[in-house]
Amino acid sequence: MGLVVQKYGGSSVADAEGIKRVAKRIVDAKKNGHQVVVVVSAMGDTTDELTDLAEQVSPIPAGRELDMLLTSGERISMALLAMAIKSLGHEAQSFTGSQAGVITDSVHNKARIIDVTPGRIRTALDEGNIAIVAGFQGVSQDKKDITTLGRGGSDTTAVALAAALDAEVCEIYTDVDGVFTADPRVVPKAQKIDWISIEDMLELAASGSKVLLHRCVEYARRYNIPIHVRSSFSGLRGTWVSNEPQGDQQVEHAIISGVAHDVSEAKITVVGVPDKPGEAAAIFRSIANAEINIDMVVQNVSAASTGLTDISFTLPKTEGRKAIDALERAKGTIGFDSLRYDDQIGKISLVGAGMKTNPGVTAGFFEALSDAGVNIELISTSEIRISVVTRADDVNEAVRAVHTAFGLDTETDEAVVYGGTGR
Amino acid sequence: MGLVVQKYGGSSVADAEGIKRVAKRIVDAKKNGHQVVVVVSAMGDTTDELTDLAEQVSPIPAGRELDMLLTSGERISMALLAMAIKSLGHEAQSFTGSQAGVITDSVHNKARIIDVTPGRIRTALDEGNIAIVAGFQGVSQDKKDITTLGRGGSDTTAVALAAALDAEVCEIYTDVDGVFTADPRVVPKAQKIDWISIEDMLELAASGSKVLLHRCVEYARRYNIPIHVRSSFSGLRGTWVSNEPQGDQQVEHAIISGVAHDVSEAKITVVGVPDKPGEAAAIFRSIANAEINIDMVVQNVSAASTGLTDISFTLPKTEGRKAIDALERAKGTIGFDSLRYDDQIGKISLVGAGMKTNPGVTAGFFEALSDAGVNIELISTSEIRISVVTRADDVNEAVRAVHTAFGLDTETDEAVVYGGTGR
Repeated sequence: MGLVVQKYGGSSVADAEGIKRVAKRIVDAKKNGHQVVVVVSAMGDTTDELTDLAEQVSPIPAGRELDMLLTSGERISMALLAMAIKSLGHEAQSFTGSQAGVITDSVHNKARIIDVTPGRIRTALDEGNIAIVAGFQGVSQDKKDITTLGRGGSDTTAVALAAALDAEVCEIYTDVDGVFTADPRVVPKAQKIDWISIEDMLELAASGSKVLLHRCVEYARRYNIPIHVRSSFSGLRGTWVSNEPQGDQQVEHAIISGVAHDVSEAKITVVGVPDKPGEAAAIFRSIANAEINIDMVVQNVSAASTGLTDISFTLPKTEGRKAIDALERAKGTIGFDSLRYDDQIGKISLVGAGMKTNPGVTAGFFEALSDAGVNIELISTSEIRISVVTRADDVNEAVRAVHTAFGLDTETDEAVVYGGTGR
Repeated sequence: MGLVVQKYGGSSVADAEGIKRVAKRIVDAKKNGHQVVVVVSAMGDTTDELTDLAEQVSPIPAGRELDMLLTSGERISMALLAMAIKSLGHEAQSFTGSQAGVITDSVHNKARIIDVTPGRIRTALDEGNIAIVAGFQGVSQDKKDITTLGRGGSDTTAVALAAALDAEVCEIYTDVDGVFTADPRVVPKAQKIDWISIEDMLELAASGSKVLLHRCVEYARRYNIPIHVRSSFSGLRGTWVSNEPQGDQQVEHAIISGVAHDVSEAKITVVGVPDKPGEAAAIFRSIANAEINIDMVVQNVSAASTGLTDISFTLPKTEGRKAIDALERAKGTIGFDSLRYDDQIGKISLVGAGMKTNPGVTAGFFEALSDAGVNIELISTSEIRISVVTRADDVNEAVRAVHTAFGLDTETDEAVVYGGTGR
């Protein structure tokens, strides 16, 4: 039996009862002969509450101080968890990100891990302890200041520690039973996936699946760490995310892994762009300079009569205002007629490595959408993914139609269990 | 203009408004040309709430983890305070106890400061920053674990930093206007003291005055740091605590500094102790072995007929159970008849260096109590203090009687202002 890293999210440790339940689960892993390292998020809505407090005292909270503030959330949950484990008769020690050796760059609020030096964790494990580590946080290499890793940071902490400690597996405990073929809130017949390749998981994460964030999966790919996504409530076997099925996992490579959707994006159309070299570059340079990540891009065929074209792209709604401002400022240099902003869009993506060798997938996808009466506004593809943009109102219907068309619906009549307490 | 250390308690930073008000006060000190180091406690009732959480997950929370948990409280308040200062246009950086160089022993929950190495604070100050430091916490010298200093720890942090940084003064901001001649909640005519000697302050603190804790005053005496206790609400000049009046302080040495009272103690009487050498030692050795601090001790005159005597002592009510258990365990070895436990007692103390040279003080004290019809159960004296134990019900009346008898009542008809917001 080797070393296991377990990560528990905020909803799993939302209150004293949750902490005690998680403590039992951790002790079980220890009793099974594993060395156990646990990464824990802040309790429930703590991080949001602290962010609110920060906004009350300062309109634009300083990054260094915001990180100092937010990291107190994990400090609370990890200390409580260590106490709960000790009261079950097992030894446990909690460690801040800094104490655990999570070294980052100095970009406050969204720092990147640049090294993990888990010397104190190793010592604690060797002395028979369960090690509890604060997720989401580290210490900057140059200034020794406290940093946070941004959204999904605790998952990344867990995978990074698993890599540094050469763990057998990184178990991500959450409030759903695993990764599903679609969001069960939208598709009641969605099925839990037993095994999914890291490549497919990366595409699902990039396409709106919320269970694992892209950054964490990317980290797992780089260091070849198997991830097991499972529920902290049910205790059932969840979804394994790895390069190949492992051990007793007898899983056929499915053609299609799942259907993801995303209604968090908006579309900007730059109208009346002179159809000449350098125009698109100027547009996207001004967006990039504003540090905005864009997603899909489409350029219309130029109208021969005017020599003008339209360029559309999608981006997070939260960045919409900033992008419009950046383009307006650059209007004189770029030269275009006007901007159109549309935040009533949705994206549906079909993901699966099987589509590389199954030429009918694209056609089947469009047929399913057409049969459901869904109009397509933009299309984008990769080797193992097709995405379309539709009206936001059409998204749920479109996801269900595609899910059914590709035979992903569960055959049982039972409702899919996702989340053991209704959270 | 030199360096000032300011300490703000939990009630001063209980909410966003409080934090913003404190931030303005800090910035004012900076604008007046001072280098400013601020020590801050956890917001309002945070520490109590965290302690409750700990008790929910573990009946006896592990010391190391409890410290990790509790220190998150100051992390929150210090980060918010730094943000609030920055939003006023001044530079500020927050530091944990560890980052500030507060080195302690390894006794979790009541660690003692053994060194202060404020290198990062110095650097921050030299770069023009206001330094915000988490009170109540440090890092252990040997294990590098987070420790807390116990009750009143933030005051001690402030005085220790003031000593290490060679500050002009340590300002303790609280929710009252300073140190009073008695508790204004009990004695409406109590007066604010403008200056009090460290010796008298030590006795008042030991006798139940809550404004400054004994340990912090002792630290100030050892390093000769003047303390200025004042309100964070009113901004008025408060009470100076120092060896001698300083600068423009023209204060006569009063005969009596004040009247303190304490209803947090209980009395244990060991009944029927054989009156022979070694018996008292055996009793107090068993108490000391249980790590209980006792206060007053009285041994009755032995009854010649039986050769037995009674020994009474007072101790914090919170230690009562432990003391009784320790004595019961040692009953066979010590040899006594029975134990009496009484937690309905109160202590009244009169403090003042002037009593050394004014022989009438003791007599006046007892006369005042007698005139008020208060019965005395135990008496204990030092060079500059007289204390008596009475029934708890008599304490308030006794304090008022003594306060009046020694001419401490204010002559103005105005109500004494203590606390600017009614807290």
